[in-house]
Amino acid sequence: MSIHSVRRECANLAWDNSIPPALHVKSGDEITFDCADASNGQLTADSTVVTLEKLTLAGFNPVNGPVFVDGAQPGDTLQVDVLRIENPEWGWTGLFPGFGLLADEFPEPALKIWKLEQEGFAWFDEKKGIKVPLRPFAGEMGVAQKKKGAFSVVPPYHTGGNIDTKHITVGSTLFLPVEVEGALFSIGDGHAAQGDGEVCGSAIETPMKVTVRLSVRKDKPYTKTPHFSTATADTPSGEYYCTTGIDSDVREAMRSAVRNMIDFLVAEYGLDRVGAYILCSVAGDLRMHEVVDMPNYVIGMMMPKSVLGPSNEV
Amino acid sequence: MSIHSVRRECANLAWDNSIPPALHVKSGDEITFDCADASNGQLTADSTVVTLEKLTLAGFNPVNGPVFVDGAQPGDTLQVDVLRIENPEWGWTGLFPGFGLLADEFPEPALKIWKLEQEGFAWFDEKKGIKVPLRPFAGEMGVAQKKKGAFSVVPPYHTGGNIDTKHITVGSTLFLPVEVEGALFSIGDGHAAQGDGEVCGSAIETPMKVTVRLSVRKDKPYTKTPHFSTATADTPSGEYYCTTGIDSDVREAMRSAVRNMIDFLVAEYGLDRVGAYILCSVAGDLRMHEVVDMPNYVIGMMMPKSVLGPSNEV
Repeated sequence: MSIHSVRRECANLAWDNSIPPALHVKSGDEITFDCADASNGQLTADSTVVTLEKLTLAGFNPVNGPVFVDGAQPGDTLQVDVLRIENPEWGWTGLFPGFGLLADEFPEPALKIWKLEQEGFAWFDEKKGIKVPLRPFAGEMGVAQKKKGAFSVVPPYHTGGNIDTKHITVGSTLFLPVEVEGALFSIGDGHAAQGDGEVCGSAIETPMKVTVRLSVRKDKPYTKTPHFSTATADTPSGEYYCTTGIDSDVREAMRSAVRNMIDFLVAEYGLDRVGAYILCSVAGDLRMHEVVDMPNYVIGMMMPKSVLGPSNEV
Repeated sequence: MSIHSVRRECANLAWDNSIPPALHVKSGDEITFDCADASNGQLTADSTVVTLEKLTLAGFNPVNGPVFVDGAQPGDTLQVDVLRIENPEWGWTGLFPGFGLLADEFPEPALKIWKLEQEGFAWFDEKKGIKVPLRPFAGEMGVAQKKKGAFSVVPPYHTGGNIDTKHITVGSTLFLPVEVEGALFSIGDGHAAQGDGEVCGSAIETPMKVTVRLSVRKDKPYTKTPHFSTATADTPSGEYYCTTGIDSDVREAMRSAVRNMIDFLVAEYGLDRVGAYILCSVAGDLRMHEVVDMPNYVIGMMMPKSVLGPSNEV
């Protein structure tokens, strides 16, 4: 196992399989990425809404990479273990006209700068006692698509990208479908905290130093969209295995998330399809992960691992 | 405070403000309802898929009531504290042709009968070690609409009804907007367990004896759709206050859920609207509660109470 790093400058503003790799690694290697925030350094801890109004949105959401993983072939799955995230110190949340679930009702730009306490929270309003727990994660993780061309880093795709899924914190594992040789993994868009949905269009956005381990898996051919396995429980039911559905039609995204969980339960647990569908209904949680990075929604079907039994490693 | 009961026979198959009350109570009274299962007793622990194929769907989803609460006036809020649920002993989950998120992919009827263990779980497949934790709740809780007429008990409405929200278990409190004198509350559709979404169209359906306390609130005029407050944490962030959006367009339901949380935060915590929207994005969870009781979706914006501070009672 080797340890690598990708500098902040090795960043791109598109998913494009013709971008030359920033780094070649072996399966199982660890890589530390030094990622700019989603504004690509245009916003700082001293910024005001005036700064935000002058921003060039074209430079937003840079992803660091791509990393070529030896042995990764189309049809394989790339396993991304999130190992470490350096505690971020500050962050911002912005309202951008035309962006966000209630864009038409919030036409004016706005900016909030957050001081991130090392104890793991940020005050929203100290006088009122309102504070936000910090659970840092990278909003963008993905691999190159087989389709030629430069694809925007704003929407999420079936190959990942801006999936903005708050559950993929340190200790979690993300699985991505490999479509090109070497997978060509990139990462970025540090979030110090975010709710399911990211409804106003931004999280607590922050620069982020994140370390992941990349491994090639040949045994998960059913991975057609991002899957993930959470390490820290987000409910008392314990940890989750999650399949996602990513589509411009939110109902189709829901349907895809459920269908992908059925495929997973059939492949890994030998369930019949009807039984798997019933299990999703009585024990699986259909959840919204991201509903603002248009045109695509990310919906998850999250199955508590405790339901699947303690002996079942996935 | 008085204690009342509503017999199993006092059930209706419509929301209709012209149905005479089964019971009159005072604000603060407790009522125990003996509810049939969603099939209205047509399915039993001995049923098979052949029974299911012969069912009369017109008799489905009976609700017990209505209960007239003295002093409840249009514009008030009805507070429903879920006090006790008797442990159910058996349940069923069914696939009904044409019903469910993947109805087109599962055209055949199916039925699973569950034995519900008193230890609080049900085996899905004992040999594989797959089991479902039981968290009983009533899928239907609602009040009469001001609109004249008989409205189906299948879809949820802004006045509640078939909201199928798994979080409203014992210890939780539901708030409903009152539209007619006396509120005319009804309840039914026992669920022993359900995931967010209820994706196949049914939960673990069961007969249920449930006790609630009904109280009139004059101080929550912003309650335009069901709100609820959970007692038992569904995440480590602790308990939630949740606003819902109910609409036949799932995106509009999402938007309504967020807008209703903004209204709540402005009214109860004195936040400005932009701040409230930002807080929803970084700390609130946009969640699907029910996506199968067509034509209406139920989406929730769930705010951890820990974010809002320990001193803030709602």
